[in-house]
Amino acid sequence: MRNIAMTVSYDGTHYSGFQIQPGVDTVQQMLMNAVQKVTGESCHIIASGRTDAGVHAIGQVINFYTESNIPAERWPIAMNTVLPRDIAVIAAVEAPFNFNARKHAVRKTYHYYIERDRKRSVFTEGLAHHHPGHLNVNEMQEAAQMLLGEHDFSSFCSLKSTKSSHVRTLYSVDCVLEPHPLHGPGLLPQLVVKVSGNGFLYNMVRIIVGTLLMVGRGRKKAEEVQAILQAKNRHLAGPTAPPEGLFLWQVEYDNLQFPT
Amino acid sequence: MRNIAMTVSYDGTHYSGFQIQPGVDTVQQMLMNAVQKVTGESCHIIASGRTDAGVHAIGQVINFYTESNIPAERWPIAMNTVLPRDIAVIAAVEAPFNFNARKHAVRKTYHYYIERDRKRSVFTEGLAHHHPGHLNVNEMQEAAQMLLGEHDFSSFCSLKSTKSSHVRTLYSVDCVLEPHPLHGPGLLPQLVVKVSGNGFLYNMVRIIVGTLLMVGRGRKKAEEVQAILQAKNRHLAGPTAPPEGLFLWQVEYDNLQFPT
Repeated sequence: MRNIAMTVSYDGTHYSGFQIQPGVDTVQQMLMNAVQKVTGESCHIIASGRTDAGVHAIGQVINFYTESNIPAERWPIAMNTVLPRDIAVIAAVEAPFNFNARKHAVRKTYHYYIERDRKRSVFTEGLAHHHPGHLNVNEMQEAAQMLLGEHDFSSFCSLKSTKSSHVRTLYSVDCVLEPHPLHGPGLLPQLVVKVSGNGFLYNMVRIIVGTLLMVGRGRKKAEEVQAILQAKNRHLAGPTAPPEGLFLWQVEYDNLQFPT
Repeated sequence: MRNIAMTVSYDGTHYSGFQIQPGVDTVQQMLMNAVQKVTGESCHIIASGRTDAGVHAIGQVINFYTESNIPAERWPIAMNTVLPRDIAVIAAVEAPFNFNARKHAVRKTYHYYIERDRKRSVFTEGLAHHHPGHLNVNEMQEAAQMLLGEHDFSSFCSLKSTKSSHVRTLYSVDCVLEPHPLHGPGLLPQLVVKVSGNGFLYNMVRIIVGTLLMVGRGRKKAEEVQAILQAKNRHLAGPTAPPEGLFLWQVEYDNLQFPT
């Protein structure tokens, strides 16, 4: 029995999230179907974490056990041949037998893409959040710095969370302007909120972004974010930003490296 | 009567090219419909040039005459409100009365995006050409340099061309590797062929790319490209590369600047 780990990218637009649910299309189900087509085995797929409906992934990490002797480097082609066009395996490695994509993740990074003003790209439908008005990016960046470090993030967590502890550590939160190569001359760079931490609660990145957007619009002051954090009260933070701007970008492990 | 010039971006996937044809959806028709919705006037749209079915644009330039007194800076929002989601006006200016987007273009730039090997992005369906095998990019770049300068490009022009002269000047042809921000960690950069010149013949960029791809695959030597050019014979060049990788990137004018 071998433990195969993979990085997986998907466009979440047409899926009801990562996790299997009866009667709807999910990324996990598509991956299980693909492994079954490749190996003839039914398998259980472990992921670094779930993503919500409409959320995308650049570097989701999964692992599963198989009796198949397909070499690790052949797995991406084998899987991509049978996967739908909006899910792709980027890389695969044979992992230590006890490796678990969820339990062993030490750092996760998300990117949230925002198109501002009336500048819209025709190529980012479902892949960015369109914010019609002006945003004060400097103020957003100042507010973002209040979230760094170890905190109880109850204010930035869905009320539906079932976790016993809401303490997590954020390593970086940055609001940066980055040109998109398909934007070309004449279009403003996109605003990207990049968040890295040791773990994330249900809707945590989207609530952080929703709160930073209120700061960017001048509806909250940067300093207020510290009080919101300390209050541990979901009702004080901003709304949950829509899913389409969010990408699970990278998941890192101490005991596993993927080939580049 | 005012002469309004605009830069326009579109995803060409669902259009039968730029130019109006009866019974099919074209970008020109959509733009004319939008102007009519905004002004109540029917107008004739002049573009820097046509693009084929499935070809995209980042910076197509158009102009048209109107009696409307909408200020130039309001035109993008007015048009984008009524245009379909896959066509967007990026910028608009009031042009000199005699400005003609086709006749006055002094430099046009195209980008052609190629995803190599089995590394596919889930976010570039219809927006890149997928080349399954290895490509020797250094050899492609060497071949590309043979095309620089003023030449008769009959070998790199569709047999359907009706132009009396096939002499054009290429200012630059470069094969570069550029990461796509939505590719993320673990995915190879895309190969982009960037071509700038004073004008382009029917299918010229796609035949140049199709020929460079044969060089990249080792099916032709870089030196052979010079002989192909000199022969002025379409049958000696490579096939016309598929439309989905091609973007009309930028059109430049001596007498017109768009706001950034």
